[in-house]
Amino acid sequence: MLKTAIEAAREAGRVIAERYPSERRFSLKGFRDLVSDADTAAEARIIELIARRFPDHAILSEEGGGVAAGAGEYTWVVDPLDGTTNYVHRLPVFAVSIGVLEHGRPLLGVIYDPLRDHTFVAHRGGGARLNNEPIQVSAVPHLNEALLGFDWGHSDEMRTKVAGCAARMLTHCGGLRVMGSACLALAYVAAGWLDGYFQAGLKPWDTAAGVLLVSEAGGCCSTLRGEAYQVSEPGCLTSNGAIHDPCLEIVKGTLA
Amino acid sequence: MLKTAIEAAREAGRVIAERYPSERRFSLKGFRDLVSDADTAAEARIIELIARRFPDHAILSEEGGGVAAGAGEYTWVVDPLDGTTNYVHRLPVFAVSIGVLEHGRPLLGVIYDPLRDHTFVAHRGGGARLNNEPIQVSAVPHLNEALLGFDWGHSDEMRTKVAGCAARMLTHCGGLRVMGSACLALAYVAAGWLDGYFQAGLKPWDTAAGVLLVSEAGGCCSTLRGEAYQVSEPGCLTSNGAIHDPCLEIVKGTLA
Repeated sequence: MLKTAIEAAREAGRVIAERYPSERRFSLKGFRDLVSDADTAAEARIIELIARRFPDHAILSEEGGGVAAGAGEYTWVVDPLDGTTNYVHRLPVFAVSIGVLEHGRPLLGVIYDPLRDHTFVAHRGGGARLNNEPIQVSAVPHLNEALLGFDWGHSDEMRTKVAGCAARMLTHCGGLRVMGSACLALAYVAAGWLDGYFQAGLKPWDTAAGVLLVSEAGGCCSTLRGEAYQVSEPGCLTSNGAIHDPCLEIVKGTLA
Repeated sequence: MLKTAIEAAREAGRVIAERYPSERRFSLKGFRDLVSDADTAAEARIIELIARRFPDHAILSEEGGGVAAGAGEYTWVVDPLDGTTNYVHRLPVFAVSIGVLEHGRPLLGVIYDPLRDHTFVAHRGGGARLNNEPIQVSAVPHLNEALLGFDWGHSDEMRTKVAGCAARMLTHCGGLRVMGSACLALAYVAAGWLDGYFQAGLKPWDTAAGVLLVSEAGGCCSTLRGEAYQVSEPGCLTSNGAIHDPCLEIVKGTLA
């Protein structure tokens, strides 16, 4: 399954990277929520590969091309192109995310950035890797030195709430970055390049692979209220662990 | 001079990329303002090259290793590593910026991202290029579809003000990104990957190359109050032109 996940992520990555220089065709699937031709082409490639090898597994995919298998124990959770808004503007920050849940719990995860050729891989109990080298979360001990990522969400109401959280966080942390790809930000937390990441409007395909990467790299994942994180939760705070409590205090007071 | 600027930027880029996998040594030069060993090593390489070929030119460089030549007409304005906070956290978003001013006006500019091997080049009247291919600003016509970049600044006071601006901008634009490298964001506006960028705490080495790239790519640069931009100004708004007025209205009301 891990081999298939890596192969599917890299094949999908090639599809979106090939179309990247010219791709501009997209449509709105919701308010400020875009889908491009590349999303659907990459999704088709991923689903075909998984369904051929694991015909009895369920597949939940962002663009809706999934396969709902009965009561199987495995569900593949796929985002063929995370960062579509960046992609259609040609901002070179996007990735493919493929996770597998076993009875709802993350079992393995792959995040692939085709432009940088970064393959982030984790499986439960097996640690996290970037291009086959082990990775771990940062050792930054205090929030005031930490570099955190977050994303705004789509609705005006959500954005205003997140801006309030950011305003509070900004005077307590080292820096804040907004990349526009949740799965890539989670992979960066796992690699220790960001010390934490939070978002309030997440979908399962944004986090299924990423939260496993963070926890296998030694980090911490919770809801915005501090409970154990489940991939069905829209709100997630991940960190290197050391800064989790002071981060949580701020997101709980402003976002939860 | 353009040949030297490109050569110096790429050599400095090699210095910082070589040290990137391991670099963690840094010190504070101001509140939330870091300098790393790589900054100073890259700066030395750039200054040595310029001073050897153009001994009578002035050099203004971020880490203070500049050469103040008398009343010469040319000043090189150098940021050996823009995005130092990202760099010391190992977030792979940073670049070298080298601009030349002729009697204070931008004459040429080079921005080099060593990890992506992106070389952005502009000279006055000669257009803008990325890896030798012509680039131009985006054609996005309306602010509500636009993807904009900005950065927070260092002080709590500045950050709070910028958060207020972002909160307002968020409900009027397509999306906001915070990359943590001003020169790279300006290069991305020139390439059409961001539709605009604003910041209130800029230094000459952040903008000397970038604003020339934007204007040579067909874009627009102004102060936060809408006046003609000069590289000594801390506040700058750049855009593809089409969205400049509605952006300006928001930054003028919140940041200027």
